This record gives sequence, C-alpha cells and structure tokens, in this order.
Amino acid sequence: MQDCVFCKIVKGEIPAHKVYEDETTLAFLDITPVNIGHTLVIPKKHYVNIYETPEEIMMHIMRTVKKISHAVKIGLKADGINVTMNNDPAAGQVVFHAHIHIIPRHANDGFGAWQGKRSYKEGEKEVIVEKIISKL
Amino acid sequence: MQDCVFCKIVKGEIPAHKVYEDETTLAFLDITPVNIGHTLVIPKKHYVNIYETPEEIMMHIMRTVKKISHAVKIGLKADGINVTMNNDPAAGQVVFHAHIHIIPRHANDGFGAWQGKRSYKEGEKEVIVEKIISKL
Repeated sequence: MQDCVFCKIVKGEIPAHKVYEDETTLAFLDITPVNIGHTLVIPKKHYVNIYETPEEIMMHIMRTVKKISHAVKIGLKADGINVTMNNDPAAGQVVFHAHIHIIPRHANDGFGAWQGKRSYKEGEKEVIVEKIISKL
Repeated sequence: MQDCVFCKIVKGEIPAHKVYEDETTLAFLDITPVNIGHTLVIPKKHYVNIYETPEEIMMHIMRTVKKISHAVKIGLKADGINVTMNNDPAAGQVVFHAHIHIIPRHANDGFGAWQGKRSYKEGEKEVIVEKIISKL
C-alpha cells in the first residue's frame, strides 16, 4: 500500500532494525517501544487487521511470533513476554497494517497489565455468549 | 494437569460460559473481564505458555482467535478488539495454562493501551537486535 509505513519497511524504502524475515513475515524493533526490545511481527503483504488477514497468514504470523518471543526472552534475559495485537483505533491501533507486538517484561517493571474493570450482571453472560455464537 | 483451573474447564469439572470448541482449542468468557464479552482461547491440552506450546498448536490457537475476534466484534458491535497473551508472572500471567485474551473495545471506553515508556540510547538498537538474533 502506497502510504503505509510498514509496507515501506518491507520494501526497504524506510530503514528498520530487522530481527527476522521469511517469505511471509517480517520482524523489527518498534520505534516507540513500551520496553527495550519491543518487537513487531507483520505480514509482508498489506492487510489492515486480524479480520482482514487470511487465516493461513495469521497462522504463519503466530509461528513467527512464537519464534521471536523465545529469542527475545532468552536474548534479552526478560522475565516475561506480552504478545498483543490491537485491531481498530478503538483498540489502540495506530498503523493500519496488521502487526503483533512482542513486549519483553521484567519483574516489577511497573508497566502493569490490563485490569478487570467490568463485571457481569445476573444473566448477562448467557446473553453475551449467544451474541458471539450467533456470528461464528 | 490436576490443579489447573483451565484443565478442569476442559474436562467439564468447572462450569464456564463456552463460546467455541474444536478438537484442539476451547473458548469461553473470562470470569474477571476487562470488558463485557472478554473471551479466552486456550489449547485443550495443558501447556504453560507460548514457549512451551508446540508451534502447530499455537497456529491452531491463532485460527480460533481470528474466528472468535470476528464473532465478538460483530456479535457485540465492538469498535475494536485487543488480542493479548501474557507469558510468565512478570508479564501478568495468572493462570499457568496458555491462553489468549480477546478483549472487545468501544470508542473512548477509557481502558487505554500500552504507552511507549522507554526510548533507545544511541547504538542500543543494534545491540538489542544482535541479542535477539543470536537466539533465533
């Protein structure tokens, strides 16, 4: 895609600190890291998000994510790894080329994780389950 | 695994609000949701985290995650979806049976996402890249 910064990285038109590449995926350091070593895994072809990316490409991306997660953990002596994917602006997506974040974590680094903030009303779970199942 | 709450859900020994099941994976509502409709996808077999889960199982999990993400988005009229996986306590993992969170988001719901909190020193990126690549 012409104006996509990640497509430009794939084509080599914008420099990036690459850590891995295969025929389908590319991994490189996030330039605005949550933590040092924060790495992104993207499909080389342009897809906007998880809904649009074909199943087999998402599966290939996960293969790369597993590989990189292990290398980041061992290579950077991280105590843990968050794997995250934000889809749509409401979920914090900023670059509209599908990407998965691999974020190394260290004990008590203070970055925190999601906190449970909502609870279900009586009978609400059953309604929610039905709504989801109806679209599967 | 005997004392694993997710293994007990797989075996039907603990109730859960299931939304999807196939031979390899199970999806059900998180009982302490970040947001209403927060769903977990797990492998039926017990693996602790992304490092331990075999590649083909992680790929199958991603296939299920894509399927559920779409259904959650459409079924719950969500504006976005966060997909996250916490590995190790330092990354916020609480149940030690690998699981991926699917969190529906709504515009301006106030839950926020990760914020960039660190920046690289001169030359640090190159060192980090080498450390990761050395473990691939």
